[in-house]
Amino acid sequence: MNYSIILKIIGWVIQLEGIFFLPPAITGLFFGEQYDALIYMILGASGILLGGLIRLHKSSKTTFYAKEGFVAVALSWIIMSVIGAVPFVLTGDIPSYIDALFEIISGFTTTGSSILNNVEALSHANLLWRSFSHWIGGMGVLVFILAILPMTGGSTMNLMKAESPGPSVGKLVPKMQRTAFLLYAIYLAMTVVEILLLLAGGMPLFDSVCHAFGTAGTGGFGIKNDSIAGYSVYLQNVITVFMFLFGVNFTFYYYILVRRIKDAFRMEEVRWYFLIFLGAVVLITISLVAAGGALGESIRIVAFQVASIMTTTGYATADFNLWPQFAKALLVCLMFIGACAGSTGGGIKVSRIMIYIKQVRKELMQQIHPKRIRVLKMDGKALEHSVIHSCNTLLMTYIVIFIVSLLLVCLDGFDMTTSFTSIAATLNNIGPGLNVIGPTGNFSEFSALSKFVLMFDMLAGRLEIIPMMVLFHPATWKK
Amino acid sequence: MNYSIILKIIGWVIQLEGIFFLPPAITGLFFGEQYDALIYMILGASGILLGGLIRLHKSSKTTFYAKEGFVAVALSWIIMSVIGAVPFVLTGDIPSYIDALFEIISGFTTTGSSILNNVEALSHANLLWRSFSHWIGGMGVLVFILAILPMTGGSTMNLMKAESPGPSVGKLVPKMQRTAFLLYAIYLAMTVVEILLLLAGGMPLFDSVCHAFGTAGTGGFGIKNDSIAGYSVYLQNVITVFMFLFGVNFTFYYYILVRRIKDAFRMEEVRWYFLIFLGAVVLITISLVAAGGALGESIRIVAFQVASIMTTTGYATADFNLWPQFAKALLVCLMFIGACAGSTGGGIKVSRIMIYIKQVRKELMQQIHPKRIRVLKMDGKALEHSVIHSCNTLLMTYIVIFIVSLLLVCLDGFDMTTSFTSIAATLNNIGPGLNVIGPTGNFSEFSALSKFVLMFDMLAGRLEIIPMMVLFHPATWKK
Repeated sequence: MNYSIILKIIGWVIQLEGIFFLPPAITGLFFGEQYDALIYMILGASGILLGGLIRLHKSSKTTFYAKEGFVAVALSWIIMSVIGAVPFVLTGDIPSYIDALFEIISGFTTTGSSILNNVEALSHANLLWRSFSHWIGGMGVLVFILAILPMTGGSTMNLMKAESPGPSVGKLVPKMQRTAFLLYAIYLAMTVVEILLLLAGGMPLFDSVCHAFGTAGTGGFGIKNDSIAGYSVYLQNVITVFMFLFGVNFTFYYYILVRRIKDAFRMEEVRWYFLIFLGAVVLITISLVAAGGALGESIRIVAFQVASIMTTTGYATADFNLWPQFAKALLVCLMFIGACAGSTGGGIKVSRIMIYIKQVRKELMQQIHPKRIRVLKMDGKALEHSVIHSCNTLLMTYIVIFIVSLLLVCLDGFDMTTSFTSIAATLNNIGPGLNVIGPTGNFSEFSALSKFVLMFDMLAGRLEIIPMMVLFHPATWKK
Repeated sequence: MNYSIILKIIGWVIQLEGIFFLPPAITGLFFGEQYDALIYMILGASGILLGGLIRLHKSSKTTFYAKEGFVAVALSWIIMSVIGAVPFVLTGDIPSYIDALFEIISGFTTTGSSILNNVEALSHANLLWRSFSHWIGGMGVLVFILAILPMTGGSTMNLMKAESPGPSVGKLVPKMQRTAFLLYAIYLAMTVVEILLLLAGGMPLFDSVCHAFGTAGTGGFGIKNDSIAGYSVYLQNVITVFMFLFGVNFTFYYYILVRRIKDAFRMEEVRWYFLIFLGAVVLITISLVAAGGALGESIRIVAFQVASIMTTTGYATADFNLWPQFAKALLVCLMFIGACAGSTGGGIKVSRIMIYIKQVRKELMQQIHPKRIRVLKMDGKALEHSVIHSCNTLLMTYIVIFIVSLLLVCLDGFDMTTSFTSIAATLNNIGPGLNVIGPTGNFSEFSALSKFVLMFDMLAGRLEIIPMMVLFHPATWKK
């Protein structure tokens, strides 16, 4: 294990987090919350100092394998969260450190599950920090570091592979740094456009920024107790559209930027994503209308909710706990499918679902016509065996984690639907589940053990499981 | 498609079912149910005649591929069920044909899910037919035909592959017919031993035979409204032991028969099966004792229930609906694991679970030490790539069927736990689920659509999915 490079990376992360504490500090000052502002400033300065001190450490070895990449990323995220929870406790808004840690992990992993009964009681500084954590976590903090720092080839590749979602990342442009930079540029530009459109609809600046952060990172932390339900239809529609857009594979936007429009619209994953979205909206709308809902309003509410769940954002404008069972079951399915690979969304990812379904189809055809030779293709190109293999083992690892988590959470004695969807909502980085943790509920009643399990699941979900498993595997730490 | 051989096989199946109608006919005569006995006799004679007529058809082609094997097996099971449901309707015990079909499919597939509110109202003839259907379905009717009939090499192999559970069947002895014969011999012998032990405990002969059939096939149809709860502790313990034994891979017994004791106890699947059983009993007992149960009684009840669920039998001595959430969640997990391959039990099968977990472990080690080459082994031998591949695609197909079924069943509007466990209980051939369909409930309230979905799932579960998918795939029927 190359401890010195890992330490150096952690130094960068801590320093960067120190800088990230500035926006909430400024927000605090602006809204007259001097005490909160002071805490964020002190923490920010400490982070910059501490990270700098750690970075003074000289690294000798330059080898950096996949294992080190996984460990560095998993550790970075844990340390980032351990520090990020501190201001919530020091400002007194979330007195329990475990709860604060749950909240910030939920933020960084863009989950949006909350332990707060009354989010409106938080200071503006803390509200901004919560929402900002979504934005930071959405694209990944290490990708950000890569975007602004020159690093050696091996380490960049292995870090990016470990932090970015989806089966085939980093093939956009040969140079990693340029990729990372481009991703962040697109991300920032889209966030700014959303802020402007929200402002145009009369949403206050503070609210616009927070909600744009929550949408961009597909996070879901709101600043109101009723999430998005209190805002105008126009504002809800803007958020619907942007939730959907941030769930698209960013390669799509890259292709559009470089005028490869044909390539963009030929992306199979984006087309499936769109079709699943459309199909779900149609089916759930029918189910609501059959239960007596008005067509127009139902379409609007359902489009919002489907975009919110499928992109794993987790905003709500309606209490879908009260919807028909069919609609709820479909929403739960969407939780698992998730957004596109290479987006800020979580879940298993549309491209992996495609690979699974294509394998099923191929297997069936193989049984019916055993002599024909078939190749799995994506975007017209044959899929490498290793990609298929790692998709399959990810599914199995995912199921194993799901089952172990479910058994542990069941010790709390909540009903089966609550327990089941609490894992679904955190492992897929969505936010709300059903029953106790539905859109109007929260995670405050869970035991400390369950909260730790769910924190692990949020991190495992965001980092696509392998980094967290490698970090906690004894073989990683054996000589 | 070689229609003439398929037709011939179906002829055999119908003729055989005619013969199978004799035991309930005799039972009816014995208990003075003349009308029921007459119906079974007429149906039996008609089956023998009709099957014989169909078999008169001359088959010209001798080619018989995997596709034909799947279609023949799936069709045989459907036709067997369509005919097997008739006596329930004609005797008036189950007036609705859909309900009767559900009941007999549940019987043949060894599921044990029932639509009956009051099973004690049935005639003895019908009760025996229900339980006998478990025994027939447990080992498979085509395997039975293979055991008594000489058939051409290709067809035997392909039929057996399609009907027998587990990833690697039929490698016991080179000659298929001998394998099939041996399997049935072991099966029959164990059933007889159970009947004798039940008789020794004072259970009436009729009850003993029915319960031994239900245990041997890992079916779960009882003849009392409270399932097994009303019988003595000794009788419950006998059934616990035999449920467990019928969930063991029959290769184990074959090895013991031919005195390869070492090979028998070296079978990894049987060891895992035993360890999972033991682990589940310990954990659930702790959970019951923590909730105030007495230790001795809890162990006994839990051992019964774990054996019942894991082997997918479905007998009950307690209403586990009332157990702690953790215990219920663990039972639901066991539903999916199921029994050993090559047993009469259902579910995904222990050996497949092993292959999944071994893949996860290998993938993790691959990430940690990328340069070492690893091979997946089972019983000391390297697993063939094709076996791993078909296990993986089976899991995915299984998930797809599960989700589609769940969405359709959710249209009935039952709570999520009921809907979820209704699919789990039928697709894994268990019987009872939770809530509405718990050990004290039944499937009578489901809509006709749901019943058809669940019937499909029961057949798909028993035949390990592929035959049913091939039967209904348009490509199978295209020229």
